Amino acid sequence: MARWAPGAGDRLQAAALDLFTDQGYDQTTVSQIAERAGVTDRTFFRWFPDKREVLFAGSERLLALFTDAVAGSPATDPVEIAADALAASTAFFAEERRPWARRRAAVVYGHPALAEREQLKMLTLAAALAEALRGRGVPEPDATLLGHTTVTVFQVSFEAWIRPDETREMAQIQRETFAALRETLGRVSTPG
Amino acid sequence: MARWAPGAGDRLQAAALDLFTDQGYDQTTVSQIAERAGVTDRTFFRWFPDKREVLFAGSERLLALFTDAVAGSPATDPVEIAADALAASTAFFAEERRPWARRRAAVVYGHPALAEREQLKMLTLAAALAEALRGRGVPEPDATLLGHTTVTVFQVSFEAWIRPDETREMAQIQRETFAALRETLGRVSTPG
Repeated sequence: MARWAPGAGDRLQAAALDLFTDQGYDQTTVSQIAERAGVTDRTFFRWFPDKREVLFAGSERLLALFTDAVAGSPATDPVEIAADALAASTAFFAEERRPWARRRAAVVYGHPALAEREQLKMLTLAAALAEALRGRGVPEPDATLLGHTTVTVFQVSFEAWIRPDETREMAQIQRETFAALRETLGRVSTPG
Repeated sequence: MARWAPGAGDRLQAAALDLFTDQGYDQTTVSQIAERAGVTDRTFFRWFPDKREVLFAGSERLLALFTDAVAGSPATDPVEIAADALAASTAFFAEERRPWARRRAAVVYGHPALAEREQLKMLTLAAALAEALRGRGVPEPDATLLGHTTVTVFQVSFEAWIRPDETREMAQIQRETFAALRETLGRVSTPG
């Protein structure tokens, strides 16, 4: 990505998470993060616009995984396209990332402004998915409904994936979560 | 509700929306709103903590309509409970409120910070619904999935309800939207 300071992005993310965890997000400065990562403040700002973005640096890539998969899915059924997009997103959640994701979540969900930002990213994802589904010819309101539903399945699966005792892979959790929702909603019920 | 200045809350809401629409949200002051409503600034602050809350004053009541309906629904099937909660929420969307809702939406969705606040209210509603469903014995992940899904149906229905040419009542739109989602997700599909 950058010629200067190879690996600095990863080191900065690790240093930031250590400091946010140990001394609190609000108490941590960019200079402290840079120092711990062994780089200058200037190098920090080549990688990230501010300390908050260290925690959200991957969100564009995650969104692109979802929307590229919708655009490129060989499926024609909208639900299968959504399932393909969920499957593609698991590239972002490799096993070796799980400890980092757990620690990051503890920081983000423990801080209201960061938690809000995380939630708003999910809404951006839902809107992007709806647009990508419309691009595949899915009509409204189905595209918007399915965009939101895909994000719901993603969020509930992610929350399970980072639970302390959880060992299932993200792909399996997503499949089981999506199946649970489809079973719940698809059940024939007597009108009340 | 209040003994002083009867009807002042409604007048303040109408005055605020007129001013937000005509001259912009950011350009409007509390004093201008109070003056247009024929009350003092002090009366304004008896009704609303700030000008933003004039637009969001009903959200606690809406949330309570949803969660009280979940708690009190005679249904036992979780999806029927959710449908009852949606039906109960329509008390908030009487026909005479539709023009106001359209004008309010134009202000809120035209202003990023207000639109964010609206979205975050929806996430609060989803979490409250999940909690109310757990209170009815719905296990996880179903309660969270259904809480989010109910909000998705609500949001998509609301957006339809305020469209310029829409004439269907909110209750009908909600039923059709929920049915569309259930049909889409419940469809048996060949594994990809």
